[in-house]
Amino acid sequence: MNQLDPGALRLLSHTTSDGVTTRELVLGEVTATLWATEHAAPGTPIVLIGHGGGVQHRHHRAVEGRARLLTDIGLRALALDVSGHGPRPRTPQDEEQVAALHAARRAHEPIGPIVEPYNADLARRTVPEWRALLAGLLAVPEIGDAPVGYWGIALGTAIGVPLVAEEPLIRAAAFGLFWSSTLIEAARRITVPVEFALQWDDEHIPREDGLALYDAFGSEEKSLHVNAGKHMELPRFEAASAVRFLERHLTV
Amino acid sequence: MNQLDPGALRLLSHTTSDGVTTRELVLGEVTATLWATEHAAPGTPIVLIGHGGGVQHRHHRAVEGRARLLTDIGLRALALDVSGHGPRPRTPQDEEQVAALHAARRAHEPIGPIVEPYNADLARRTVPEWRALLAGLLAVPEIGDAPVGYWGIALGTAIGVPLVAEEPLIRAAAFGLFWSSTLIEAARRITVPVEFALQWDDEHIPREDGLALYDAFGSEEKSLHVNAGKHMELPRFEAASAVRFLERHLTV
Repeated sequence: MNQLDPGALRLLSHTTSDGVTTRELVLGEVTATLWATEHAAPGTPIVLIGHGGGVQHRHHRAVEGRARLLTDIGLRALALDVSGHGPRPRTPQDEEQVAALHAARRAHEPIGPIVEPYNADLARRTVPEWRALLAGLLAVPEIGDAPVGYWGIALGTAIGVPLVAEEPLIRAAAFGLFWSSTLIEAARRITVPVEFALQWDDEHIPREDGLALYDAFGSEEKSLHVNAGKHMELPRFEAASAVRFLERHLTV
Repeated sequence: MNQLDPGALRLLSHTTSDGVTTRELVLGEVTATLWATEHAAPGTPIVLIGHGGGVQHRHHRAVEGRARLLTDIGLRALALDVSGHGPRPRTPQDEEQVAALHAARRAHEPIGPIVEPYNADLARRTVPEWRALLAGLLAVPEIGDAPVGYWGIALGTAIGVPLVAEEPLIRAAAFGLFWSSTLIEAARRITVPVEFALQWDDEHIPREDGLALYDAFGSEEKSLHVNAGKHMELPRFEAASAVRFLERHLTV
């Protein structure tokens, strides 16, 4: 349990390139990366980036690219490695779920019945990690009392929805591409502004399911962005849109 | 019929203020306004602005404001007065429809059964006017062979959908806030990129109806933006989004 004492946060190596400083963080078993423009002031807004399933955040262009969009407008970006992802070991349970997912894909069976409960389990493990990491980071004087946002698609939404429902420091959240059944109760408890993206021709997530999740958010300000195309075809301009949305709510 | 000979287009008075030139146009009975930055080059993209029902475009802040968003990024904006709107006289039929609409509002009855057929009638009258006005304008040497987009909400969508379906010069269109039944056939024939906005808590247009219209567009690239709120509560940031969408498709 003291594994997740925020005071145990360690800021490891940092490298600076093109005016952006990338820093590796460790808190117990949790590994994470923080990006910021060089000489970012205390209080600079932070966006938590939730990666997708199976992604090794350190090497994955999607997370690096999203961090870059955020540092380009002067924000900090923080990505945490979910258990079983990136450098973090898989448990036997993780291995079993991943094998079941691959088997379903090979058999052209629906993946929802595997992904939904598996990602709900990852969320139960990861939400306390995110909260401890955030608390530890905000206690660092050079970070300061910063406005916080969340941005995650797919697994990043499966973890982000319960996280944003529980963590009062998060002021705005960009989500997308997930089923509703395991998230709908937490979504109802979210009241901060939300931008939610779904794909109209998603081969995994039925339209009605994505619409039901959007409908469930308790937020007074909530936007849904639908685009034509399959699950993996979310247009690149939606990333720019999420960044504008977060900027609007995190900067004064 | 020769009322709509594009060669009959007359460019009347123009005024320049804050670097933006506003010019009044007349083609037969059709009145219109063209906005452009001073010294705009031939070939500068033009966005056709379709006003909402009952709006006097010359005085209405919404149309002026949208024109300003477009000239701010160097585009031209063109708004046409729909028959019975602005300086154009109402026919007895117009008067009857408007009276029926007001009566339905007073009685708290659904307005769709009146607005849908009335606006379909306005569209039948206005589409040929838009096409003649556009042909006339593109023949003016200082305008040149410009890329053309369309932007209209509510009545602007009721007219815009059949217009964009018929007019091959229009390359992209931003629509929103209308029922589906009178538009669905034309929407299926549209193949250019579309951005469509609807309000999740619209007291006049059922959700399913807005979603059905989005679903009908034949375009490979189509985006739907849904926001929480009633019919008149479309957020201001959707105007900025429509402008970015049009800019992306009209400028190279």
